Amino acid sequence: MRATVMHGAGDVRIENVPDARLVEPTDALVVVTRGAICGSDLWPYRSMEHDDAGRRMGHEFIGVVEAVGTDVRTVRRGDVVGSPFLWSDGTCVFCKEGLHSSCLHGGRYGFDDVDGGQGEAVRVPQADGTLVALPVDRDDALMPSLLTLSDVMGTGHHAALAAKVAPGRNVAVVGDGAVGLCGVIAAKRLGGERIIMLGRHPDRVALAKELGATDVVSERGDEAVERVRELTGGLGVHSVLECVGLEQSMLTALGVARAGGAVGRVGVPQEEAIPASLPTFFKNVAIGGGPAPVRAYIEELLPDVLDGRIEPGRVFDRVSGLEGVPDGYRAMNDREAIKVMIDF
Amino acid sequence: MRATVMHGAGDVRIENVPDARLVEPTDALVVVTRGAICGSDLWPYRSMEHDDAGRRMGHEFIGVVEAVGTDVRTVRRGDVVGSPFLWSDGTCVFCKEGLHSSCLHGGRYGFDDVDGGQGEAVRVPQADGTLVALPVDRDDALMPSLLTLSDVMGTGHHAALAAKVAPGRNVAVVGDGAVGLCGVIAAKRLGGERIIMLGRHPDRVALAKELGATDVVSERGDEAVERVRELTGGLGVHSVLECVGLEQSMLTALGVARAGGAVGRVGVPQEEAIPASLPTFFKNVAIGGGPAPVRAYIEELLPDVLDGRIEPGRVFDRVSGLEGVPDGYRAMNDREAIKVMIDF
Repeated sequence: MRATVMHGAGDVRIENVPDARLVEPTDALVVVTRGAICGSDLWPYRSMEHDDAGRRMGHEFIGVVEAVGTDVRTVRRGDVVGSPFLWSDGTCVFCKEGLHSSCLHGGRYGFDDVDGGQGEAVRVPQADGTLVALPVDRDDALMPSLLTLSDVMGTGHHAALAAKVAPGRNVAVVGDGAVGLCGVIAAKRLGGERIIMLGRHPDRVALAKELGATDVVSERGDEAVERVRELTGGLGVHSVLECVGLEQSMLTALGVARAGGAVGRVGVPQEEAIPASLPTFFKNVAIGGGPAPVRAYIEELLPDVLDGRIEPGRVFDRVSGLEGVPDGYRAMNDREAIKVMIDF
Repeated sequence: MRATVMHGAGDVRIENVPDARLVEPTDALVVVTRGAICGSDLWPYRSMEHDDAGRRMGHEFIGVVEAVGTDVRTVRRGDVVGSPFLWSDGTCVFCKEGLHSSCLHGGRYGFDDVDGGQGEAVRVPQADGTLVALPVDRDDALMPSLLTLSDVMGTGHHAALAAKVAPGRNVAVVGDGAVGLCGVIAAKRLGGERIIMLGRHPDRVALAKELGATDVVSERGDEAVERVRELTGGLGVHSVLECVGLEQSMLTALGVARAGGAVGRVGVPQEEAIPASLPTFFKNVAIGGGPAPVRAYIEELLPDVLDGRIEPGRVFDRVSGLEGVPDGYRAMNDREAIKVMIDF
């Protein structure tokens, strides 16, 4: 079958790889119908050392079940299914608490003999715990929004929860990528009052406003902090969604937080330490977040997607076939595209 | 009057200073009956550069109101009163939210022409917002426990809240000083199931057990993390109270936290950054805490002290007169004493 393989920074190829197949009795074999390129795929795209064998890519997908192992009970051949970006058993102590991203028997797509999601088919381990049957046809018009439940919409929701967004609380979103935009949707959905998007790309900022941002701050660094303070009576915001992962973005996030506020971070940290320990301490600002337990959120968010109350699929501004994926990486890295959907 | 003045590392003196007096109509003049030396006083004791003028010390005290300004309504001459370690107006947006430590019109004792608490009398600004009248005589047997409500008991409680201690959750306390020991009391009071004290000083560890610790881990660093994991089925604890403030203690705190857990930090950070950003992120461990809004907690904790349900005064293992304060600093710094009470 054909699948996406990264061999190094800037070197993404579509190659022939061994066909996906059932291995464990708890596996499902899913033929991918929609996939996506993730902002987090851009980190290795910028920094990966050359590797002849390469690395299988992709962790966001929807597909149709082709076959299931003998132990699988909740999905069957022909089902249209969505997957979180991590697989999980659904039965361990962490899954039961809703922290599927720490599943004791879970893992990542593209590693350890599990296929990546940017390919024609995927062996999904722990299918009962991982997959969610979707009550739609494989080409439903809602596919883009449903696909975001694999990662970015659930991740934006996780940031908003970790930042303790609630009715009456002011919110800032640091990062105008797909996760940040989904963070705006999540903040609005949870009742955030003022929702300030920190971003400067005209198309992204315009979309943020359509999705629920009440204000846009295009300054950076200390000037951005100053501007957010001006917008909030000098106090800063209660909730900050940190959707980038760089030291500078975290500094900004911590800087715009109000005393007693919270920063929810979902951008994978690119530095070893969290900056500004002392000012954060003196403000009693909490820092939470991490990899989103998307599986826990799919059931909560799915009705809103099906009813059209939220439209996270709008973060996809480019559609590509599988062979166009390498150019999709380039376009996202060059900020030509916010997020690329792969239509198989 | 006589008061404690620090002139540099290891150089604490009892000196004649100008008498405390009312300045603002919102002030109260309090004659100090009990004071204390705080673990945080030891940071300048170890590092302060020489200063001829010196720095007035002390922020934990109980006393008797000698006089009040014309605007003061809630306390009057003759009242026995306790003070939080920060003064606050009780009316600003943060005080109303219970975050008195961020009061817009508050401040610290010993700075800006406000007396320190390790002296014969203190001008207390914003007396209505700051002071709490205590329904006891000035020499009540509960004085040591009441005095801890100025700082260490409220701070331990704050750590426990920030660490989300609740019934059924396992707890670790990093730091066996007075705050850590009060953290044990707070964790038990909030229903923590297993309460693991990380400490190695026999007297402190013994006291921790009497106060509610179920286990003691005397290892350090990675070995301590390993030992806590062993005690918790390999998972780590839900709630960690970080009561030191050093990089190593924070690393330990983050290391023993269970995925999805929380670290409440109340030790003033001595480093610019919080370590272990990436592993903390991948575990979805939240970090909260800061200076405790002790004023918000006095009313909650006071009934438990008055009824004898908690005995935080047991952290005082030495009593000194004012002239003995310099030796009290030395004793605490040498770990001869856990915490020194000053009896005027």
